[in-house]
Amino acid sequence: MSDKIKSTNITWHDATVTVEDRRRKNGHQGAVLWFTGLSASGKSTIAQAVQAALFEMGCQVYVLDGDNVRHGLNKDLGFSPEDREENIRRIGEVAALFCDAGFIVSTAFISPYRSDRDKARALCPEQFCEVYVKCSVEVCETRDPKGLYQKAREGKIPEFTGISAPYEEPENAELVLDTAELSVEDCVEAVLAYLQEKGKLNR
Amino acid sequence: MSDKIKSTNITWHDATVTVEDRRRKNGHQGAVLWFTGLSASGKSTIAQAVQAALFEMGCQVYVLDGDNVRHGLNKDLGFSPEDREENIRRIGEVAALFCDAGFIVSTAFISPYRSDRDKARALCPEQFCEVYVKCSVEVCETRDPKGLYQKAREGKIPEFTGISAPYEEPENAELVLDTAELSVEDCVEAVLAYLQEKGKLNR
Repeated sequence: MSDKIKSTNITWHDATVTVEDRRRKNGHQGAVLWFTGLSASGKSTIAQAVQAALFEMGCQVYVLDGDNVRHGLNKDLGFSPEDREENIRRIGEVAALFCDAGFIVSTAFISPYRSDRDKARALCPEQFCEVYVKCSVEVCETRDPKGLYQKAREGKIPEFTGISAPYEEPENAELVLDTAELSVEDCVEAVLAYLQEKGKLNR
Repeated sequence: MSDKIKSTNITWHDATVTVEDRRRKNGHQGAVLWFTGLSASGKSTIAQAVQAALFEMGCQVYVLDGDNVRHGLNKDLGFSPEDREENIRRIGEVAALFCDAGFIVSTAFISPYRSDRDKARALCPEQFCEVYVKCSVEVCETRDPKGLYQKAREGKIPEFTGISAPYEEPENAELVLDTAELSVEDCVEAVLAYLQEKGKLNR
Protein backbone atom coordinates (compact mmCIF):
# COMPACT_ATOMS: atom_id res chain seq x y z
CA MET A 1 0.00 0.00 0.00
CA SER A 2 2.99 2.26 0.49
CA ASP A 3 3.17 3.26 -3.16
CA LYS A 4 -0.29 4.73 -2.89
CA ILE A 5 0.53 7.29 -0.27
CA LYS A 6 1.34 10.01 -2.76
CA SER A 7 -1.62 9.25 -4.95
CA THR A 8 -4.24 10.73 -2.67
CA ASN A 9 -6.09 13.54 -4.28
CA ILE A 10 -8.64 14.98 -1.92
CA THR A 11 -9.64 18.27 -0.46
CA TRP A 12 -8.06 18.29 2.96
CA HIS A 13 -10.23 20.85 4.62
CA ASP A 14 -13.68 19.69 5.56
CA ALA A 15 -12.76 16.24 4.30
CA THR A 16 -15.25 13.64 5.42
CA VAL A 17 -15.90 9.98 4.90
CA THR A 18 -19.63 9.47 4.57
CA VAL A 19 -21.83 6.53 5.46
CA GLU A 20 -22.33 6.04 1.71
CA ASP A 21 -18.56 5.98 1.15
CA ARG A 22 -18.22 3.24 3.74
CA ARG A 23 -21.09 1.27 2.33
CA ARG A 24 -19.58 1.31 -1.15
CA LYS A 25 -16.19 0.26 0.15
CA ASN A 26 -17.46 -2.52 2.39
CA GLY A 27 -20.12 -3.83 0.06
CA HIS A 28 -22.76 -3.75 2.78
CA GLN A 29 -24.52 -1.41 5.18
CA GLY A 30 -23.85 -0.96 8.84
CA ALA A 31 -26.15 -2.83 11.22
CA VAL A 32 -26.61 -3.62 14.89
CA LEU A 33 -27.54 -7.21 15.74
CA TRP A 34 -28.74 -6.93 19.33
CA PHE A 35 -28.76 -10.41 20.85
CA THR A 36 -30.78 -10.63 24.05
CA GLY A 37 -31.66 -13.59 26.22
CA LEU A 38 -30.93 -15.43 29.44
CA SER A 39 -27.49 -16.44 30.58
CA ALA A 40 -26.49 -19.64 28.72
CA SER A 41 -29.22 -19.14 26.09
CA GLY A 42 -26.54 -19.07 23.38
CA LYS A 43 -26.16 -15.34 22.64
CA SER A 44 -22.37 -15.23 22.48
CA THR A 45 -22.00 -18.51 20.62
CA ILE A 46 -24.44 -17.40 17.94
CA ALA A 47 -23.01 -13.87 17.76
CA GLN A 48 -19.50 -15.24 17.25
CA ALA A 49 -20.69 -17.75 14.65
CA VAL A 50 -22.61 -15.03 12.78
CA GLN A 51 -19.52 -12.85 12.90
CA ALA A 52 -17.35 -15.63 11.47
CA ALA A 53 -19.82 -16.34 8.67
CA LEU A 54 -20.16 -12.67 7.74
CA PHE A 55 -16.40 -12.18 7.90
CA GLU A 56 -15.89 -15.06 5.53
CA MET A 57 -18.36 -13.35 3.19
CA GLY A 58 -16.16 -10.26 3.26
CA CYS A 59 -18.10 -8.11 5.72
CA GLN A 60 -16.73 -5.76 8.36
CA VAL A 61 -17.86 -7.29 11.64
CA TYR A 62 -17.32 -7.01 15.38
CA VAL A 63 -18.84 -8.45 18.55
CA LEU A 64 -19.31 -6.51 21.76
CA ASP A 65 -19.70 -8.87 24.71
CA GLY A 66 -18.76 -9.30 28.32
CA ASP A 67 -15.21 -10.22 27.43
CA ASN A 68 -14.32 -6.91 25.81
CA VAL A 69 -16.72 -4.53 27.56
CA ARG A 70 -17.24 -5.53 31.17
CA HIS A 71 -13.55 -5.34 32.05
CA GLY A 72 -12.92 -2.29 29.92
CA LEU A 73 -15.40 0.46 29.12
CA ASN A 74 -17.84 -0.66 31.81
CA LYS A 75 -15.46 -1.83 34.51
CA ASP A 76 -16.70 0.94 36.80
CA LEU A 77 -20.21 -0.51 36.80
CA GLY A 78 -21.72 -3.09 39.12
CA PHE A 79 -25.05 -4.87 39.01
CA SER A 80 -27.40 -2.41 40.69
CA PRO A 81 -30.44 -1.45 38.61
CA GLU A 82 -28.86 1.92 37.80
CA ASP A 83 -25.57 0.34 36.80
CA ARG A 84 -27.28 -2.30 34.66
CA GLU A 85 -29.12 0.46 32.84
CA GLU A 86 -25.93 2.47 32.33
CA ASN A 87 -24.15 -0.69 31.17
CA ILE A 88 -26.67 -1.22 28.39
CA ARG A 89 -26.83 2.50 27.58
CA ARG A 90 -23.09 2.63 26.91
CA ILE A 91 -23.14 -0.58 24.89
CA GLY A 92 -25.94 0.86 22.77
CA GLU A 93 -23.93 4.02 22.16
CA VAL A 94 -20.80 2.10 21.21
CA ALA A 95 -22.77 -0.22 18.95
CA ALA A 96 -24.18 2.87 17.21
CA LEU A 97 -20.64 4.18 16.68
CA PHE A 98 -19.56 0.86 15.13
CA CYS A 99 -22.66 0.90 12.94
CA ASP A 100 -21.86 4.45 11.87
CA ALA A 101 -18.35 3.25 11.01
CA GLY A 102 -19.92 0.71 8.64
CA PHE A 103 -19.72 -2.45 10.74
CA ILE A 104 -22.26 -5.15 11.21
CA VAL A 105 -21.79 -5.17 14.97
CA SER A 106 -23.31 -7.76 17.28
CA THR A 107 -23.93 -7.22 20.97
CA ALA A 108 -24.31 -10.23 23.25
CA PHE A 109 -25.65 -9.16 26.63
CA ILE A 110 -28.61 -10.40 28.64
CA SER A 111 -30.10 -6.88 28.46
CA PRO A 112 -33.21 -7.97 30.36
CA TYR A 113 -35.18 -4.73 30.27
CA ARG A 114 -37.34 -3.70 27.35
CA SER A 115 -36.83 -0.01 28.03
CA ASP A 116 -33.05 -0.34 27.85
CA ARG A 117 -33.19 -2.26 24.58
CA ASP A 118 -35.61 0.27 23.15
CA LYS A 119 -33.21 3.10 23.96
CA ALA A 120 -30.44 1.27 22.12
CA ARG A 121 -32.78 0.77 19.18
CA ALA A 122 -33.66 4.47 19.12
CA LEU A 123 -30.01 5.36 18.43
CA CYS A 124 -30.10 3.72 14.99
CA PRO A 125 -33.65 2.47 14.35
CA GLU A 126 -33.11 1.73 10.66
CA GLN A 127 -30.06 -0.41 11.34
CA PHE A 128 -31.23 -2.17 14.50
CA CYS A 129 -32.17 -5.84 14.60
CA GLU A 130 -33.27 -7.25 17.94
CA VAL A 131 -32.54 -10.97 18.09
CA TYR A 132 -34.28 -12.76 20.91
CA VAL A 133 -32.26 -15.86 21.77
CA LYS A 134 -35.12 -17.75 23.34
CA CYS A 135 -34.51 -20.56 25.78
CA SER A 136 -36.34 -21.49 28.98
CA VAL A 137 -34.71 -21.02 32.35
CA GLU A 138 -34.96 -24.79 32.83
CA VAL A 139 -32.94 -25.55 29.70
CA CYS A 140 -30.41 -22.79 30.38
CA GLU A 141 -30.00 -24.16 33.86
CA THR A 142 -29.14 -27.62 32.57
CA ARG A 143 -26.42 -26.07 30.37
CA ASP A 144 -25.02 -23.69 33.01
CA PRO A 145 -21.46 -23.67 31.54
CA LYS A 146 -20.15 -21.25 34.14
CA GLY A 147 -22.07 -22.68 37.11
CA LEU A 148 -23.87 -19.37 37.54
CA TYR A 149 -27.37 -20.79 37.86
CA GLN A 150 -26.20 -23.11 40.60
CA LYS A 151 -24.64 -20.23 42.48
CA ALA A 152 -27.79 -18.17 41.98
CA ARG A 153 -29.94 -21.00 43.34
CA GLU A 154 -27.63 -21.18 46.35
CA GLY A 155 -28.15 -17.47 46.87
CA LYS A 156 -24.51 -16.69 46.15
CA ILE A 157 -25.42 -14.40 43.25
CA PRO A 158 -28.17 -11.90 44.09
CA GLU A 159 -30.50 -10.57 41.43
CA PHE A 160 -29.69 -13.20 38.85
CA THR A 161 -31.79 -12.83 35.69
CA GLY A 162 -34.36 -15.61 35.37
CA ILE A 163 -33.92 -16.73 38.99
CA SER A 164 -34.17 -13.70 41.24
CA ALA A 165 -34.41 -10.86 38.72
CA PRO A 166 -36.81 -10.44 35.81
CA TYR A 167 -36.22 -10.98 32.11
CA GLU A 168 -38.62 -9.00 29.97
CA GLU A 169 -39.16 -10.94 26.75
CA PRO A 170 -39.01 -8.91 23.53
CA GLU A 171 -42.45 -8.22 22.10
CA ASN A 172 -41.40 -7.12 18.63
CA ALA A 173 -38.00 -8.68 18.01
CA GLU A 174 -36.97 -8.82 14.38
CA LEU A 175 -35.82 -12.38 14.96
CA VAL A 176 -36.61 -15.05 17.53
CA LEU A 177 -34.19 -17.95 17.73
CA ASP A 178 -35.36 -20.84 19.90
CA THR A 179 -32.10 -22.49 20.86
CA ALA A 180 -33.83 -25.45 22.49
CA GLU A 181 -34.95 -26.35 18.96
CA LEU A 182 -32.46 -24.81 16.54
CA SER A 183 -28.81 -25.65 15.99
CA VAL A 184 -26.19 -22.92 15.90
CA GLU A 185 -26.03 -23.46 12.14
CA ASP A 186 -29.78 -22.89 11.88
CA CYS A 187 -29.51 -19.69 13.90
CA VAL A 188 -26.69 -18.36 11.73
CA GLU A 189 -28.65 -19.09 8.58
CA ALA A 190 -31.67 -17.29 10.01
CA VAL A 191 -29.64 -14.17 10.78
CA LEU A 192 -27.96 -14.18 7.37
CA ALA A 193 -31.32 -14.65 5.67
CA TYR A 194 -32.73 -11.71 7.62
CA LEU A 195 -29.84 -9.45 6.64
CA GLN A 196 -30.14 -10.49 3.03
CA GLU A 197 -33.91 -10.04 2.96
CA LYS A 198 -33.60 -6.56 4.42
CA GLY A 199 -31.01 -5.60 1.85
CA LYS A 200 -28.33 -5.08 4.48
CA LEU A 201 -25.81 -7.07 2.47
CA ASN A 202 -26.25 -4.96 -0.65
CA ARG A 203 -23.86 -2.25 -1.67
CA MET B 1 -22.76 -10.66 -2.02
CA SER B 2 -26.01 -12.58 -1.72
CA ASP B 3 -24.79 -15.50 -3.79
CA LYS B 4 -22.05 -16.13 -1.29
CA ILE B 5 -24.28 -16.80 1.67
CA LYS B 6 -24.38 -20.53 1.12
CA SER B 7 -20.69 -20.78 0.45
CA THR B 8 -19.56 -20.33 4.03
CA ASN B 9 -17.70 -23.29 5.34
CA ILE B 10 -16.60 -22.76 8.88
CA THR B 11 -16.77 -24.40 12.25
CA TRP B 12 -19.63 -22.66 13.99
CA HIS B 13 -18.80 -23.46 17.55
CA ASP B 14 -15.96 -21.49 19.05
CA ALA B 15 -15.70 -19.58 15.78
CA THR B 16 -13.56 -16.50 16.14
CA VAL B 17 -12.21 -13.76 13.96
CA THR B 18 -8.66 -13.01 15.03
CA VAL B 19 -6.65 -9.81 14.89
CA GLU B 20 -4.55 -11.50 12.21
CA ASP B 21 -7.64 -12.33 10.17
CA ARG B 22 -8.68 -8.69 10.25
CA ARG B 23 -5.20 -7.48 9.35
CA ARG B 24 -5.08 -9.74 6.30
CA LYS B 25 -8.52 -8.66 5.17
CA ASN B 26 -7.95 -4.93 5.66
CA GLY B 27 -4.40 -4.86 4.40
CA HIS B 28 -3.19 -2.97 7.45
CA GLN B 29 -2.97 -3.18 11.22
CA GLY B 30 -5.21 -1.53 13.74
CA ALA B 31 -3.91 1.68 15.28
CA VAL B 32 -4.95 4.52 17.56
CA LEU B 33 -3.97 8.02 16.48
CA TRP B 34 -4.48 10.04 19.62
CA PHE B 35 -4.60 13.73 18.67
CA THR B 36 -4.14 16.06 21.65
CA GLY B 37 -3.86 19.83 21.82
CA LEU B 38 -5.62 23.05 22.67
CA SER B 39 -9.03 24.02 21.41
CA ALA B 40 -8.67 25.35 17.83
CA SER B 41 -5.20 23.85 17.47
CA GLY B 42 -6.41 21.81 14.49
CA LYS B 43 -6.97 18.35 15.96
CA SER B 44 -10.30 17.61 14.30
CA THR B 45 -9.35 19.09 10.94
CA ILE B 46 -6.19 17.01 10.78
CA ALA B 47 -7.90 13.88 12.08
CA GLN B 48 -10.60 14.16 9.44
CA ALA B 49 -8.07 14.83 6.69
CA VAL B 50 -5.95 11.86 7.79
CA GLN B 51 -9.07 9.71 7.80
CA ALA B 52 -9.99 10.81 4.28
CA ALA B 53 -6.48 10.13 2.99
CA LEU B 54 -6.32 6.69 4.60
CA PHE B 55 -9.81 5.83 3.40
CA GLU B 56 -8.82 6.69 -0.14
CA MET B 57 -5.85 4.35 0.28
CA GLY B 58 -8.29 1.57 1.16
CA CYS B 59 -7.92 1.57 4.93
CA GLN B 60 -10.63 1.02 7.52
CA VAL B 61 -10.82 4.28 9.44
CA TYR B 62 -12.94 6.16 11.96
CA VAL B 63 -12.75 9.36 13.97
CA LEU B 64 -13.98 9.75 17.52
CA ASP B 65 -14.55 13.39 18.36
CA GLY B 66 -16.87 15.69 20.22
CA ASP B 67 -19.52 15.40 17.55
CA ASN B 68 -20.12 11.69 17.97
CA VAL B 69 -19.07 11.13 21.59
CA ARG B 70 -20.00 14.11 23.72
CA HIS B 71 -23.70 13.93 22.89
CA GLY B 72 -23.82 10.16 22.92
CA LEU B 73 -21.65 7.87 25.00
CA ASN B 74 -20.47 10.67 27.27
CA LYS B 75 -23.56 12.82 27.44
CA ASP B 76 -23.84 12.11 31.16
CA LEU B 77 -20.48 13.78 31.82
CA GLY B 78 -19.74 17.42 32.58
CA PHE B 79 -16.48 19.28 32.87
CA SER B 80 -15.45 18.64 36.47
CA PRO B 81 -12.00 17.10 36.88
CA GLU B 82 -13.57 13.70 37.61
CA ASP B 83 -15.85 13.90 34.59
CA ARG B 84 -13.02 15.01 32.32
CA GLU B 85 -11.00 12.01 33.45
CA GLU B 86 -13.93 9.64 32.89
CA ASN B 87 -14.55 11.25 29.50
CA ILE B 88 -11.05 10.42 28.33
CA ARG B 89 -11.10 6.99 29.99
CA ARG B 90 -14.16 5.95 28.01
CA ILE B 91 -12.78 7.37 24.77
CA GLY B 92 -9.59 5.40 25.33
CA GLU B 93 -11.58 2.21 25.88
CA VAL B 94 -13.70 2.74 22.76
CA ALA B 95 -10.61 3.56 20.70
CA ALA B 96 -9.06 0.29 21.90
CA LEU B 97 -12.19 -1.59 20.75
CA PHE B 98 -11.99 -0.02 17.29
CA CYS B 99 -8.29 -0.84 17.15
CA ASP B 100 -9.06 -4.42 18.14
CA ALA B 101 -11.64 -4.48 15.34
CA GLY B 102 -8.82 -3.63 12.90
CA PHE B 103 -9.45 0.08 12.40
CA ILE B 104 -7.04 2.96 12.28
CA VAL B 105 -9.06 5.10 14.66
CA SER B 106 -8.31 8.73 15.41
CA THR B 107 -9.42 10.53 18.54
CA ALA B 108 -9.63 14.31 18.55
CA PHE B 109 -10.04 15.63 22.08
CA ILE B 110 -8.10 18.21 24.03
CA SER B 111 -7.19 15.50 26.58
CA PRO B 112 -5.09 17.95 28.60
CA TYR B 113 -3.76 15.58 31.26
CA ARG B 114 -0.72 13.38 30.75
CA SER B 115 -2.00 10.74 33.14
CA ASP B 116 -5.25 10.34 31.22
CA ARG B 117 -3.45 10.02 27.90
CA ASP B 118 -1.04 7.52 29.40
CA LYS B 119 -3.93 5.36 30.57
CA ALA B 120 -5.36 5.36 27.05
CA ARG B 121 -1.95 4.40 25.73
CA ALA B 122 -1.68 1.53 28.20
CA LEU B 123 -4.76 -0.12 26.69
CA CYS B 124 -2.96 -0.79 23.39
CA PRO B 125 0.65 0.37 23.73
CA GLU B 126 1.87 -1.26 20.52
CA GLN B 127 -0.83 0.41 18.44
CA PHE B 128 -0.88 3.83 20.11
CA CYS B 129 0.45 6.95 18.46
CA GLU B 130 0.20 10.19 20.43
CA VAL B 131 0.04 13.14 18.08
CA TYR B 132 0.63 16.48 19.72
CA VAL B 133 -1.09 19.17 17.68
CA LYS B 134 1.06 22.01 18.88
CA CYS B 135 -0.13 25.59 18.71
CA SER B 136 0.26 28.45 21.15
CA VAL B 137 -2.70 29.81 23.06
CA GLU B 138 -2.12 33.11 21.31
CA VAL B 139 -2.48 31.63 17.85
CA CYS B 140 -5.43 29.43 18.84
CA GLU B 141 -7.09 32.49 20.28
CA THR B 142 -6.80 34.39 17.01
CA ARG B 143 -8.51 31.46 15.23
CA ASP B 144 -11.23 30.88 17.84
CA PRO B 145 -13.77 29.49 15.30
CA LYS B 146 -16.41 28.86 17.95
CA GLY B 147 -15.77 31.99 20.01
CA LEU B 148 -14.84 29.85 22.98
CA TYR B 149 -11.64 31.71 23.88
CA GLN B 150 -13.52 34.97 23.93
CA LYS B 151 -16.15 33.51 26.24
CA ALA B 152 -13.42 32.05 28.44
CA ARG B 153 -11.67 35.43 28.66
CA GLU B 154 -14.98 36.98 29.65
CA GLY B 155 -15.29 34.38 32.40
CA LYS B 156 -18.33 32.78 30.79
CA ILE B 157 -16.63 29.39 30.49
CA PRO B 158 -14.91 28.29 33.68
CA GLU B 159 -11.86 26.03 33.62
CA PHE B 160 -11.10 26.52 29.94
CA THR B 161 -7.94 24.73 28.88
CA GLY B 162 -5.10 27.16 28.15
CA ILE B 163 -6.87 30.07 29.84
CA SER B 164 -8.06 28.97 33.24
CA ALA B 165 -7.19 25.27 33.24
CA PRO B 166 -3.86 23.60 32.49
CA TYR B 167 -2.71 21.80 29.35
CA GLU B 168 0.06 19.33 30.06
CA GLU B 169 2.20 19.12 26.94
CA PRO B 170 3.15 15.61 25.81
CA GLU B 171 6.73 14.72 26.69
CA ASN B 172 7.12 11.69 24.47
CA ALA B 173 4.60 12.07 21.68
CA GLU B 174 5.26 9.92 18.63
CA LEU B 175 4.50 12.95 16.48
CA VAL B 176 4.51 16.70 17.05
CA LEU B 177 2.67 18.80 14.47
CA ASP B 178 3.21 22.53 14.80
CA THR B 179 0.13 23.93 13.12
CA ALA B 180 1.39 27.49 13.29
CA GLU B 181 4.04 26.34 10.79
CA LEU B 182 2.63 23.34 8.94
CA SER B 183 -0.27 23.17 6.51
CA VAL B 184 -2.97 20.52 6.91
CA GLU B 185 -1.40 18.76 3.91
CA ASP B 186 1.97 18.70 5.67
CA CYS B 187 0.39 17.27 8.81
CA VAL B 188 -1.39 14.54 6.88
CA GLU B 189 1.83 13.59 5.10
CA ALA B 190 3.65 13.42 8.45
CA VAL B 191 1.04 11.06 9.92
CA LEU B 192 1.02 8.84 6.82
CA ALA B 193 4.81 8.73 6.81
CA TYR B 194 4.80 7.72 10.46
CA LEU B 195 2.31 4.91 9.86
CA GLN B 196 4.29 3.70 6.87
CA GLU B 197 7.62 3.85 8.70
CA LYS B 198 6.22 1.84 11.60
CA GLY B 199 4.86 -0.79 9.26
CA LYS B 200 1.25 -0.10 10.26
CA LEU B 201 0.17 -0.02 6.64
CA ASN B 202 1.60 -3.44 5.86
CA ARG B 203 -0.49 -6.57 5.69
